[in-house]
Amino acid sequence: MEIAILLYENFTALDCIGPYEVLSKSPGTEVKFVSADGGLVKSDTGMLRIESGSLDSISATPEIVLVPGGPGDAAAGADSRNTAWLKRVHETTKWTTSVCTGSLVLGAAGILRGIEATTHWCSFDRLRACGATPVSQRFVRQGKIITAAGVSAGIDMALFLLAEEQGADFAQAIQLAIEYDPQPPFDSGSPTKAPPAILEMVTAYFENERATSATDRD
Amino acid sequence: MEIAILLYENFTALDCIGPYEVLSKSPGTEVKFVSADGGLVKSDTGMLRIESGSLDSISATPEIVLVPGGPGDAAAGADSRNTAWLKRVHETTKWTTSVCTGSLVLGAAGILRGIEATTHWCSFDRLRACGATPVSQRFVRQGKIITAAGVSAGIDMALFLLAEEQGADFAQAIQLAIEYDPQPPFDSGSPTKAPPAILEMVTAYFENERATSATDRD
Repeated sequence: MEIAILLYENFTALDCIGPYEVLSKSPGTEVKFVSADGGLVKSDTGMLRIESGSLDSISATPEIVLVPGGPGDAAAGADSRNTAWLKRVHETTKWTTSVCTGSLVLGAAGILRGIEATTHWCSFDRLRACGATPVSQRFVRQGKIITAAGVSAGIDMALFLLAEEQGADFAQAIQLAIEYDPQPPFDSGSPTKAPPAILEMVTAYFENERATSATDRD
Repeated sequence: MEIAILLYENFTALDCIGPYEVLSKSPGTEVKFVSADGGLVKSDTGMLRIESGSLDSISATPEIVLVPGGPGDAAAGADSRNTAWLKRVHETTKWTTSVCTGSLVLGAAGILRGIEATTHWCSFDRLRACGATPVSQRFVRQGKIITAAGVSAGIDMALFLLAEEQGADFAQAIQLAIEYDPQPPFDSGSPTKAPPAILEMVTAYFENERATSATDRD
């Protein structure tokens, strides 16, 4: 089974490395990192670069496609090489998936029109603008399309997907292998759980980041 | 603040990308991926390569050092370039940390002798052989040394470390930003929680992997 992970400048690394870690251990699975330009792709912090192949370096029919999110999502969705490729491979994928604002790249390719989907909690308005109905869930499955919430949600989505593909026993084995027994020292991981002052701070941060990147594009 | 992440062939990617994602967003933080050879370093699946600088491409006194685990841990710990570097930087670090069997690389550098530490649940005997006392905890802090359990435990450790450095508010803000509100579809992430048959399967897998890599080294 071939899994294609679409990278682009300013992607968020954990969005794709979480699912990669869960999915790559299945027998016969090949995970391929690809990007429109190929070569090294820089993550959103500017401190990490991951190697990728070009979009035509893999088969034309990967079984699974995964798009991570990140501050580069809008530029990635505006690049017709990405959206044309997504539209094309989506015709034959077994699963088309995203993590965080990767759903907005799927949305830019018209893939989420008229269906329920999710994204990072701070980007529901942008998801709606793609014609999708935002749902506040860890991940949302609609047929063969699965969209996950922010960043770390990709790990949970990938375990679900792995169970669909390889059975619940295998998914549990991988959960044990990666010792995914989360014990965060705080309980602040969702807008409904975070203290109001923290929620306000993070919302302001993302709004500012979005305004800055909109200005950069002008 | 400079954070050095030590890569080596056959490291496990999530071990370091989890903490990287949590720690890299602090103001003034620079995360540097380094390795003995520099250049692209291949993860344990053979499907992912991350760019690294050489050990002398960064300052001689990084404030935080983090060593991921992976099937390449024994080879990494046997490479005197890694252990000499770890011994040297450990003298001046503010925090010396590991995830999963990264603790065995710290152990090979003599850093864990006589203290409590943790590692992947399947490698407690190897940790003991480094002179450490294995403890079954998500992460173990002993002074400035923090060792985390398997793979995904690095995310929890990094949130703790971030709170120590930047305060609990900032750590909670990052938890919200990466939407770390875990909802795994199964509860199989530790040997005390996994069904016995799953535990047996995964234990056999790791024992076989260890035997194979020991044979490779002979």
